[in-house]
Amino acid sequence: MQERNRTEISSLGEFGLIKHLTKDIESINPETKYGVGDDAAVIDSTPLQTLITTDMLMEGVHFDLVYTPLKHLGYKSAIVNFSDIYAMNGTPKQITVSLAVSKRFCIEDLEQFYEGLRLACQLHHVDIIGGDTTSSVTGLAISITCIGVADKEQIVYRNGAKETDLICVTGDLGAAYMGLQLLEREKAVFEGQNEVNPDFTGKEYLLERQLKPEARKDIVEKLRNEGIKPTAMIDISDGLSSELMHICSQSHAGCRIYEDRLPIDYQTAVMAEEFNMNLSTCALNGGEDYELLFTVPLTEHEKVSAIKGVKVIGYITKPELGCALITRDNQEFELKAQGWNPLKE
Amino acid sequence: MQERNRTEISSLGEFGLIKHLTKDIESINPETKYGVGDDAAVIDSTPLQTLITTDMLMEGVHFDLVYTPLKHLGYKSAIVNFSDIYAMNGTPKQITVSLAVSKRFCIEDLEQFYEGLRLACQLHHVDIIGGDTTSSVTGLAISITCIGVADKEQIVYRNGAKETDLICVTGDLGAAYMGLQLLEREKAVFEGQNEVNPDFTGKEYLLERQLKPEARKDIVEKLRNEGIKPTAMIDISDGLSSELMHICSQSHAGCRIYEDRLPIDYQTAVMAEEFNMNLSTCALNGGEDYELLFTVPLTEHEKVSAIKGVKVIGYITKPELGCALITRDNQEFELKAQGWNPLKE
Repeated sequence: MQERNRTEISSLGEFGLIKHLTKDIESINPETKYGVGDDAAVIDSTPLQTLITTDMLMEGVHFDLVYTPLKHLGYKSAIVNFSDIYAMNGTPKQITVSLAVSKRFCIEDLEQFYEGLRLACQLHHVDIIGGDTTSSVTGLAISITCIGVADKEQIVYRNGAKETDLICVTGDLGAAYMGLQLLEREKAVFEGQNEVNPDFTGKEYLLERQLKPEARKDIVEKLRNEGIKPTAMIDISDGLSSELMHICSQSHAGCRIYEDRLPIDYQTAVMAEEFNMNLSTCALNGGEDYELLFTVPLTEHEKVSAIKGVKVIGYITKPELGCALITRDNQEFELKAQGWNPLKE
Repeated sequence: MQERNRTEISSLGEFGLIKHLTKDIESINPETKYGVGDDAAVIDSTPLQTLITTDMLMEGVHFDLVYTPLKHLGYKSAIVNFSDIYAMNGTPKQITVSLAVSKRFCIEDLEQFYEGLRLACQLHHVDIIGGDTTSSVTGLAISITCIGVADKEQIVYRNGAKETDLICVTGDLGAAYMGLQLLEREKAVFEGQNEVNPDFTGKEYLLERQLKPEARKDIVEKLRNEGIKPTAMIDISDGLSSELMHICSQSHAGCRIYEDRLPIDYQTAVMAEEFNMNLSTCALNGGEDYELLFTVPLTEHEKVSAIKGVKVIGYITKPELGCALITRDNQEFELKAQGWNPLKE
């Protein structure tokens, strides 16, 4: 391991630290009128509607610093918020970043976190406009709020799915969850041993999906270019089942999805076998995929099927038919939201 | 102490809890188009500029639940954010509320927190539009983001103070700090003893200033009614000295304030004597007053002096004169930002 510099945060204090971390941040969006440095940030008026989403990430609950590089954590913290704005069919524009850090962290740690954060912001053309940096007596707490915009007519809620609509999902499912299992296993194996570098060869994709997820800006743009406006949309943070049930419950609808249509990567399948886990369960309930789940009218079948990275996995039904998975052997199983729930026992 | 019901949070889970806490929340502002329940909240377009501020409050750092009722904490968490919007000469409109809670907390606790939050929101006509509720392995973490609006021409930054401008402060200073000292003393005295009710008679004002501060909406409105636009403004969260130095540094100016002009309540003075503390130091560096500090052109002297709750305490100078306090015996002392700084040793 390389020798690292360690500069104590107390050497700068709160205002010094904020200045240091944000010193060369320049706004990308012309509507960002004033960022860090006053009681509040200022955003110019716009004919578009404003979207607001917020996510809180707690050490020991949402991430484990034993195997999560701070740069990746910064990147992921921003991405999970952008994903929510894309899921409204909007465009993320600004974020505020609040951090509570214990004495365990040094300035170099926070620089890494900010490096990841800024990388995500550059890729998605988002400005960091403010936040709060304070201390914590225990672990690291991260709270990010993202501000986005969307044309009023283009916003897609969760509640617009109609009977016969097609259910579509982007990318593949379950890989982030398998990445987490892999990291947890290696952590358990090597607990207490220093300087061990586990071999993740051939499993890089799973790790990347867990540690450095992407938000599907590309899909939102493709749908727009094709003139397709989804009837309902949500991002997959807690798992496909859980999110699909949100759409159905809010749209007063039921659904059927097909097990053999679930998009799953080869590495995910290999790992599930290695862990002796049911692959479909991982895909349905894994969570943290940050893919988009959306519904489109049946008439868009041809156009939506032609978009790379989108898969039609089922259709919307009348509410009284409930939500079910149709297995490979043609049986129906009721979907359950077993997704990640931090507040359950 | 009254017997209390205790319902475990795990009995509802994350989505059940959010539904429960937000079930009868109705929007007050017509521009709040969609609140809790989707990937992001939606706010209508406006010809005004948008203001964004955020604050993070950590248990053990910003509050001690031994003597802080959760209802008061909810109230204060909202107020500190509104105060930042008023300090821009804006109007708070919406908040998002993120909470990370440990198993120690039950649903009734969060109901109390929300009760305080909603009371503050009602008084300031603010909508709760979303948030995140998750678990914490340790203490309670609160992160609130407030969205406000202001006319472009009316926004007041920290950087507009000019030489000869008058320095004004609202309300009185140091009481919240003395309230904290009082609570800490009682906690130390009674540590380990149950069912003890310390006698705070005659000190209620100090406790209220610490536990249930107000944001100066009234002053912002009065200034507007009088046609006075401050040249610079900030709210006093870290202490008068610290905030005044922010205004001076960002306005490239110096200042003189008079010790005998500092507004101090009688109870604050009595307690400072009891604690054998320097009263002016408490007023200058105490923090958490959530009063407004602002500058106005000298020509507004008569009008601003006539506003109840506003006191002129000094004036802005050339930057090379630095920032100083003029004592009762006419000596000059350089101001130092010894305000509350959670990241200093």
